[in-house]
Amino acid sequence: MSKKLLCLMVLLGTSFCSVGQEEASAIKNIFNEELSNGHAYTMLDHLANRIGGRLSGSPQAAVAVEWGKSTMESMSIDRVWLQEVMVPHWVRGEKEQASITVGSKKQVLRICALGNSIGTGPKGIAAAVIEVKSFLELEKLGKEKIAGNIVFFNRPMDPKEIYTGTAYGGAVDQRGRGVVEAARFGALGVVVRSVTLAMDDHPHTGSVQYSNTVAKIPACAISTMGASVLSQAILGNPKAKFFFRQTCEMLPDVKSHNIVGEIKGSTFPDEIILVGGHLDSWDLGTGAHDDGAGVVQSMEVLRLFKALGMRPRRTIRAVLFMNEENGTRGAMKYAELSAQNKEHHLAAMESDEGGFTPRDFSVEGDGFDRIRSWIPLLAPYGIQGIVHEHTGTDLGPLKKLGVTLVGYRSDSQRYFDYHHAETDTFDKVNKRELELGAANMAALIWLISEHGL
Amino acid sequence: MSKKLLCLMVLLGTSFCSVGQEEASAIKNIFNEELSNGHAYTMLDHLANRIGGRLSGSPQAAVAVEWGKSTMESMSIDRVWLQEVMVPHWVRGEKEQASITVGSKKQVLRICALGNSIGTGPKGIAAAVIEVKSFLELEKLGKEKIAGNIVFFNRPMDPKEIYTGTAYGGAVDQRGRGVVEAARFGALGVVVRSVTLAMDDHPHTGSVQYSNTVAKIPACAISTMGASVLSQAILGNPKAKFFFRQTCEMLPDVKSHNIVGEIKGSTFPDEIILVGGHLDSWDLGTGAHDDGAGVVQSMEVLRLFKALGMRPRRTIRAVLFMNEENGTRGAMKYAELSAQNKEHHLAAMESDEGGFTPRDFSVEGDGFDRIRSWIPLLAPYGIQGIVHEHTGTDLGPLKKLGVTLVGYRSDSQRYFDYHHAETDTFDKVNKRELELGAANMAALIWLISEHGL
Repeated sequence: MSKKLLCLMVLLGTSFCSVGQEEASAIKNIFNEELSNGHAYTMLDHLANRIGGRLSGSPQAAVAVEWGKSTMESMSIDRVWLQEVMVPHWVRGEKEQASITVGSKKQVLRICALGNSIGTGPKGIAAAVIEVKSFLELEKLGKEKIAGNIVFFNRPMDPKEIYTGTAYGGAVDQRGRGVVEAARFGALGVVVRSVTLAMDDHPHTGSVQYSNTVAKIPACAISTMGASVLSQAILGNPKAKFFFRQTCEMLPDVKSHNIVGEIKGSTFPDEIILVGGHLDSWDLGTGAHDDGAGVVQSMEVLRLFKALGMRPRRTIRAVLFMNEENGTRGAMKYAELSAQNKEHHLAAMESDEGGFTPRDFSVEGDGFDRIRSWIPLLAPYGIQGIVHEHTGTDLGPLKKLGVTLVGYRSDSQRYFDYHHAETDTFDKVNKRELELGAANMAALIWLISEHGL
Repeated sequence: MSKKLLCLMVLLGTSFCSVGQEEASAIKNIFNEELSNGHAYTMLDHLANRIGGRLSGSPQAAVAVEWGKSTMESMSIDRVWLQEVMVPHWVRGEKEQASITVGSKKQVLRICALGNSIGTGPKGIAAAVIEVKSFLELEKLGKEKIAGNIVFFNRPMDPKEIYTGTAYGGAVDQRGRGVVEAARFGALGVVVRSVTLAMDDHPHTGSVQYSNTVAKIPACAISTMGASVLSQAILGNPKAKFFFRQTCEMLPDVKSHNIVGEIKGSTFPDEIILVGGHLDSWDLGTGAHDDGAGVVQSMEVLRLFKALGMRPRRTIRAVLFMNEENGTRGAMKYAELSAQNKEHHLAAMESDEGGFTPRDFSVEGDGFDRIRSWIPLLAPYGIQGIVHEHTGTDLGPLKKLGVTLVGYRSDSQRYFDYHHAETDTFDKVNKRELELGAANMAALIWLISEHGL
């Protein structure tokens, strides 16, 4: 990404702004309103602190749906509705337990079950631990060394990556697919180093993907400090026994909802610009950055236009997706209904990289050059550039419909410190950083709405 | 600043990079080393958590001097020395007390004495409160309304400013000069709204400047939440009495030191490039962002060059200034000695805006275009641009010597939340954000050292 960004910075000056002073004023108004009277922070306070963690299928997720609907209804926008969707219902069960025993010395370790994982049974599992850093290493060890043992995936995120999302992408395969790769060789269970750059004692959850062709084995995440302890303990001690116990289980699907609110376009009502985030969150923290921030920023875009009397030329639709974390069912349902109803989405923007200070926008599909030409208008508000990168999980199903996808990306340095951990709480969100995100999103949506792509 | 930045972003592409792939590799090495093996964070841990708040003249400041010297000595650089300087020795005394009483109802408020302020006497001061938002308003009220009362300066920082330093600059006159302006009209004391954008109950200290021609009256800061309570309480209640008590006092000057460490230039040893921060801090917190961050980043620049075997062509000097917070004596002494010794400083860089994620560099003096031409090399590491703005307080005395001044500016959104308050502690600093700052500083210093200005 470094080279791309560098190239963009150099190219930036060669693209002249295609819009002028009028738009600069509109954008200034958006920022003034948000920084003086913004609602994003108080909405997030409610969502994170009053409702809390809201995993798909949980009672809190149902409360969050009601809250999202009533909050958007209170904005006097043109229309608010729910989209019914069946979602997975995974429950964590009792507090997880883990320890490593070397001879007579037992050390307790902090773990959490990985999302969608099966449990260990009430007695837990105890076995020797085989540490690997990659699937290749696992394959080389083969069935002979792996069968009957617990596999410990311990490859850290690469601290040298500047954009931490890249480092995450380089490590998260262990969490997502490790359970299948290890089961192929007869492992009894999997323990994965938390996918974070922080060195602390908080395990980070996240979903695993089972395969229909391989036996399901239980998987947990261990804190990064715990991973160091575990790695050290088993070094030269092949008889060391790792124990873990988790009573999580997947229950039958339950009914839940996406929430959609929209302001009809004055000139092109059939051209839709979507802005969204996901309402569900993991259960350990309160989903403040992931993705309470994106949820309230998306709703705030509508509120800003209403508060400022800005009537967009195209239809602006805020979507709070359900079930991004462990199924993406809401996003698939939204795209399915959109295709059914023959809707035309001009663009779709997602905010799901935290509510930190603004950094840039990522774009997939058409419109890159157009959007780039507007970046100088957003630079005074912290937008450094625009990159050809992944935009957002919930936008994925819209890709095949030819929609221009946009990701709002806040500064990535702290995101994975809290991501999927009990530390993803409201106190980690700075009011102004959250607001600058909402206002930058509104500004770009306004430009797209006024000028098309 | 918005227009300037916008203009810069547009212009950026027109300046071609004057250096090429070799420098890009050197910079990449700097970042790889810092993000993989950086010492900045552990140094800051020691300074903030082990040594703590270190106001000029305090025992902790003396310990910090010893620590700074021995830490630089451990780096095997060419030379480390102390510069003796006499500094003010202000002490806070007992925990401050304050309350507002309306009729029989008394409410306790959180305040702190402002730095360099006199005390109230052991019994404290109680008087009616006159709230103003500006010196003009104060002048309009005049002696008749002000004499015998306590003046409450309650103009908030403007949340609409994107760069919070500008908002700070628009409010801090109340804290610095309020005490003189109020005393002119016979006020008994001054209470100032904390100069922060955060709405919480932490008072923020900072220095006041007395005048020799006006009576000295005591001054304190009240938390922003306290300011709201106080403002509400006195509304329509002219008989409401504000009470405050503080036993702070200014003691005789004491001997302290700047610490200087340097790597001699291989080609131009007489051309000095300075990088520095201030070692002293306020006493309420532990001076983590202000300015522990700048101190460890400056030392880290030297360590990076040593660790990577990069021998700079010009002399690089890290300076830990004493007494930035309430006197700037260290900076004045440094410039005085530099002039005495006929030293030639090519450039001087300061980091004193917190250890947050990188944003830009400010420049005063010659070399702006040259430095701007290098920004594309730093853009992949979070540097968005370069601005003509104030660079740093400790660089001020070097200005008249014709030195190019550079300010490293990290993202400003959170800085004033913690600035001069008990919340400026190590846990508010993110390891990677701190490191990215150190590496960007090292990278720009390297470019100046290799290519001149």
